[in-house]
Amino acid sequence: MENINEIDKIKTRVVGIDIREARTTYAVVNIRGEILGQDHFCTSDYPDITSYVTELCDRVQAMIEEYGGYETVRSVGISVPSGNYLTGCIEHAANLQWKGIIPLAAMLQDRLGLAVALANDAHITALGEKAFGSAHGMKDFVVVSISHGGVGSCIFTNGLPHLGVNGFAGEVGHTCVEVGGRQCGCGRRGCLETYISDRGLIMTAEQMIAESHEPTLLSELEELTPRTIIECCDKGDRVAINTMAEVGRMLGIGLANYASLLNPEAIILTGDMMQAGKWLLKPMRQSFDAHVFHNIRGSVRILVSILKEGERDVLGASALAWDVKEYSLFKDS
Amino acid sequence: MENINEIDKIKTRVVGIDIREARTTYAVVNIRGEILGQDHFCTSDYPDITSYVTELCDRVQAMIEEYGGYETVRSVGISVPSGNYLTGCIEHAANLQWKGIIPLAAMLQDRLGLAVALANDAHITALGEKAFGSAHGMKDFVVVSISHGGVGSCIFTNGLPHLGVNGFAGEVGHTCVEVGGRQCGCGRRGCLETYISDRGLIMTAEQMIAESHEPTLLSELEELTPRTIIECCDKGDRVAINTMAEVGRMLGIGLANYASLLNPEAIILTGDMMQAGKWLLKPMRQSFDAHVFHNIRGSVRILVSILKEGERDVLGASALAWDVKEYSLFKDS
Amino acid sequence: MENINEIDKIKTRVVGIDIREARTTYAVVNIRGEILGQDHFCTSDYPDITSYVTELCDRVQAMIEEYGGYETVRSVGISVPSGNYLTGCIEHAANLQWKGIIPLAAMLQDRLGLAVALANDAHITALGEKAFGSAHGMKDFVVVSISHGGVGSCIFTNGLPHLGVNGFAGEVGHTCVEVGGRQCGCGRRGCLETYISDRGLIMTAEQMIAESHEPTLLSELEELTPRTIIECCDKGDRVAINTMAEVGRMLGIGLANYASLLNPEAIILTGDMMQAGKWLLKPMRQSFDAHVFHNIRGSVRILVSILKEGERDVLGASALAWDVKEYSLFKDS
Amino acid sequence: MENINEIDKIKTRVVGIDIREARTTYAVVNIRGEILGQDHFCTSDYPDITSYVTELCDRVQAMIEEYGGYETVRSVGISVPSGNYLTGCIEHAANLQWKGIIPLAAMLQDRLGLAVALANDAHITALGEKAFGSAHGMKDFVVVSISHGGVGSCIFTNGLPHLGVNGFAGEVGHTCVEVGGRQCGCGRRGCLETYISDRGLIMTAEQMIAESHEPTLLSELEELTPRTIIECCDKGDRVAINTMAEVGRMLGIGLANYASLLNPEAIILTGDMMQAGKWLLKPMRQSFDAHVFHNIRGSVRILVSILKEGERDVLGASALAWDVKEYSLFKDS
Repeated sequence: MENINEIDKIKTRVVGIDIREARTTYAVVNIRGEILGQDHFCTSDYPDITSYVTELCDRVQAMIEEYGGYETVRSVGISVPSGNYLTGCIEHAANLQWKGIIPLAAMLQDRLGLAVALANDAHITALGEKAFGSAHGMKDFVVVSISHGGVGSCIFTNGLPHLGVNGFAGEVGHTCVEVGGRQCGCGRRGCLETYISDRGLIMTAEQMIAESHEPTLLSELEELTPRTIIECCDKGDRVAINTMAEVGRMLGIGLANYASLLNPEAIILTGDMMQAGKWLLKPMRQSFDAHVFHNIRGSVRILVSILKEGERDVLGASALAWDVKEYSLFKDS
Repeated sequence: MENINEIDKIKTRVVGIDIREARTTYAVVNIRGEILGQDHFCTSDYPDITSYVTELCDRVQAMIEEYGGYETVRSVGISVPSGNYLTGCIEHAANLQWKGIIPLAAMLQDRLGLAVALANDAHITALGEKAFGSAHGMKDFVVVSISHGGVGSCIFTNGLPHLGVNGFAGEVGHTCVEVGGRQCGCGRRGCLETYISDRGLIMTAEQMIAESHEPTLLSELEELTPRTIIECCDKGDRVAINTMAEVGRMLGIGLANYASLLNPEAIILTGDMMQAGKWLLKPMRQSFDAHVFHNIRGSVRILVSILKEGERDVLGASALAWDVKEYSLFKDS
Repeated sequence: MENINEIDKIKTRVVGIDIREARTTYAVVNIRGEILGQDHFCTSDYPDITSYVTELCDRVQAMIEEYGGYETVRSVGISVPSGNYLTGCIEHAANLQWKGIIPLAAMLQDRLGLAVALANDAHITALGEKAFGSAHGMKDFVVVSISHGGVGSCIFTNGLPHLGVNGFAGEVGHTCVEVGGRQCGCGRRGCLETYISDRGLIMTAEQMIAESHEPTLLSELEELTPRTIIECCDKGDRVAINTMAEVGRMLGIGLANYASLLNPEAIILTGDMMQAGKWLLKPMRQSFDAHVFHNIRGSVRILVSILKEGERDVLGASALAWDVKEYSLFKDS
Repeated sequence: MENINEIDKIKTRVVGIDIREARTTYAVVNIRGEILGQDHFCTSDYPDITSYVTELCDRVQAMIEEYGGYETVRSVGISVPSGNYLTGCIEHAANLQWKGIIPLAAMLQDRLGLAVALANDAHITALGEKAFGSAHGMKDFVVVSISHGGVGSCIFTNGLPHLGVNGFAGEVGHTCVEVGGRQCGCGRRGCLETYISDRGLIMTAEQMIAESHEPTLLSELEELTPRTIIECCDKGDRVAINTMAEVGRMLGIGLANYASLLNPEAIILTGDMMQAGKWLLKPMRQSFDAHVFHNIRGSVRILVSILKEGERDVLGASALAWDVKEYSLFKDS
């Protein structure tokens, strides 16, 4: 409409940024979750946070110019490990090279002249699932992400993320399921993470191999990884299958505890380990049903994310960008 | 993923239905607001509500079968004049042929075996704007829809629709702006609607013609309608322009009252009259600024909907469908 | 319990402060709204904000010491005209001697070492009504306060105050009910306030006296005030009764507009003018019923505050104090 | 004010009912939590639910008449084991004599002609703590109640109870803390409840006695109960102290898991076992600090309820009564 400039204009795009240990992905995304442009670069090339921010902002600005310019871009959302939504800072990230507390949201807002919001990867994954994935339309759910580093999760209650009073809620990986159990990297014993993370899987595989009296393909592998273990499952290897079943059993207990406390509509699982499919999920579900409090049994849906791994967190970051109040140094003309 | 059937499946589509006096439009829409299929039929062909429901359900079922079947469809959302979200009923619709209270949501839920939610057109329009339009990312806003029948509106506060204790909030068309002013169809005098609806516009045009001392194209028109009046504005006709300016002035007062009470982030306007563009919007904005309380002036954005007229309410109805709890007679197999 | 000091202690008291043009009242209040101690001093004795803050803090500290000490006091809440909850500042108060923007919450927090929250008087009145008065148990309601200075109001939706995007919502006194009507102090014409505030009442009385053909006690009064006019009503003076009825009629229109927009459960009225009782309220109710949109008529309760004038805002300020996050310079020992 | 009857009246009282296995307590409570009248009778005298409801309603009606009559009473709130707020029913209560699903709220609403809400005891306890106790002013907290029957809890997020999608959230007693641990009455193993309930305490005491090489007062007790064990602690008995410390250790683990998931502002403890004071709470706190995720450590307050045992749930039930929409068969006259 030619006369639309008589009144205020609306911005229909945001920038979503997904920062991981190895790679930073950034994209311009519209209201409906269409990725108009996407690119990435190597996070670890920038051990200094200032030079990293410079590189990131240069790239984001160039992409904004390419896709409609500042008049069309509303705000920026960031997914980053140990990101605290309440402070806008990365706080003591174990797996990133930048140590201490880094006010990343403020740094980007200064450089880009746009509103910037930041959250940790589990929170962003849950936002992505709510906006565009399996949790769309749900109000009370939990998203659990199992990755190399560990296990993260995010709780939604009444349609909103429950971040906790300091923004640290969701540490399901560090709930104790076995008093005096396996030693965890966090210094405690019996944390769920020690049984169900990638490392937990491998440790269980090693125990299974050692205790097994039957031959197993696992013992011939060059390296025990989730991928190689899953391959052995697919070949019908009993020990591999039992390994994955044991991880599923522990995952089922952890999820049952979660469900007994929260009675969510659904638990949504993400992470590479979901590739194990039935080898993991069937025993997980049996264990879940055996351990969840009986009045909840049968009412909690357990779902695997339907979003693409390479897109989920960029989309989730774009959803966060919409949640922040608009702010722009660039006046509407 | 081949093993996904070990755990619960997710449904990624809903049905959106937009019922208007003349035409009923229905569509299958996915999570991201993509309309996969859309069709319509003539509402007024079915003066009997039962036969109307039969026709509608037959058509919706056929479309569901065509687009993936019941396993992929989660729920149904309906936009209908005088629809009450809290009761699921059409309640005494002035402009529909079905009189009294009609439990339409329940009737469709019975026939379709799916969860059904229903709301009035202003509520649905606002949901559409929030999900896919100008209000995306906003928490406190108002959507005002000006149509032939009258003026509807819907308030969002803190990210949620404010429907009022009986579901009747938003009757901005029947707020009094002129004590003892124009007679309204509702029986009272001075209602905003009598000045800014299509009928109000025409009445103002007639007054302007009668009082005008200069010749005007308006007096040569076969029929005074928003469209013909706007055409005269575009041709530079002074009386037509003054007519539209007067409507803009009254609209500005009505919106200023709204803004003084609610201090919203934005007011979003929809309806055919927005086609008047600057002839309406410029005087509206001037009047708004003159009448809004001074500490709010300059902080309220006034926006025109960016969604297509033919899609907005089907999309809004799909957004409502996601808001209702899932329910299905059709078991996941 | 002797061992309670093994775990954290709870604080069961707050300070509520009510700042008005003439008088500042402050009190220590417990969880249940019992006023343990209350005192006041003359606001206008301190034209300089720094000396005012010093006096206020000295007095509050002394009262805290008297009633259990800092270990028992959790936080402070303040009611002040033109107070903005979102910023913690007094912003351009027309009726206070301190001009411009005054960061009062921060100033008190620094001096007292306690969390401090601040809000305008209409917001505080509504909090008081919700915590301890007529709105207890309600989620959607409006509180309208009519005072000498003007007309304030506060909206609650879904159990929470709707302050608007800048904290300025509720300016019902400056909604236009008569295009081109009475001149308002705000520079516009036809504001509701010009008809229903104390000043509006007096102007209406003057008009009624001038236009009246019958003798009236009003013309013998030394001064026209709400009180003297009400006294004449009580004596049966026709012109006084008509004056109050006319104010009631305009109030009814203003409240009807409010109700047509928000469909609240109740509208609660406070302020000295409520002393007029039936002379005001009966015509107000008739006018309200005549002007509110028909589907809402009969469903909105109109209530007069049941709290004592001298306690309402100190109690409301105490309720605000509970709403702010606890913070204390004083460590639990 | 004589004219107040020109407008609507407000009701300032509610009825709170606390139903337990042995005793039913009921009270008339005002807005500020003052108990105006309170009485009780023996629950177990009425094995038939209909006669129980008759007795309860007769008594409540008599008390209403005594304290101001129906014009002053707004609604009724009920605390009952296995009460489901979402359905208004008692659902399969293990410890009550009435079996199956009992629509108690509807039964009372019919008889009393007032709005009735019902919730389980853990929910009610948390409401009581929020309205009048340690959680006043908090938005994110957990209340854990340890009683003879077991362990209940209720979560508040963002100021509202998180009941879960079926109303069953909070089953902390049945989270697994020891894979393959103690047998629980629910059929599973390792539930927290088997270690920290009264029965869990006694089992731990028996184990400690059996394993102990030193003499202990515990072995001379006629009956092992929380009370007698605490008495032995107070006398300095080593085995009793170790018993209580072991229960505290397990409680600390359970609360640490809760806190790692939810990062609440506080956890509030209620129940007779809190009488153990430092014998329980000191080891609990040590265990909590050792097991909670490190970034949360130090930020979660652990509090013991400050409300009187005999009043907490009647007050909590009164708070629930305010939360339900008003409804009355008795017209305002």
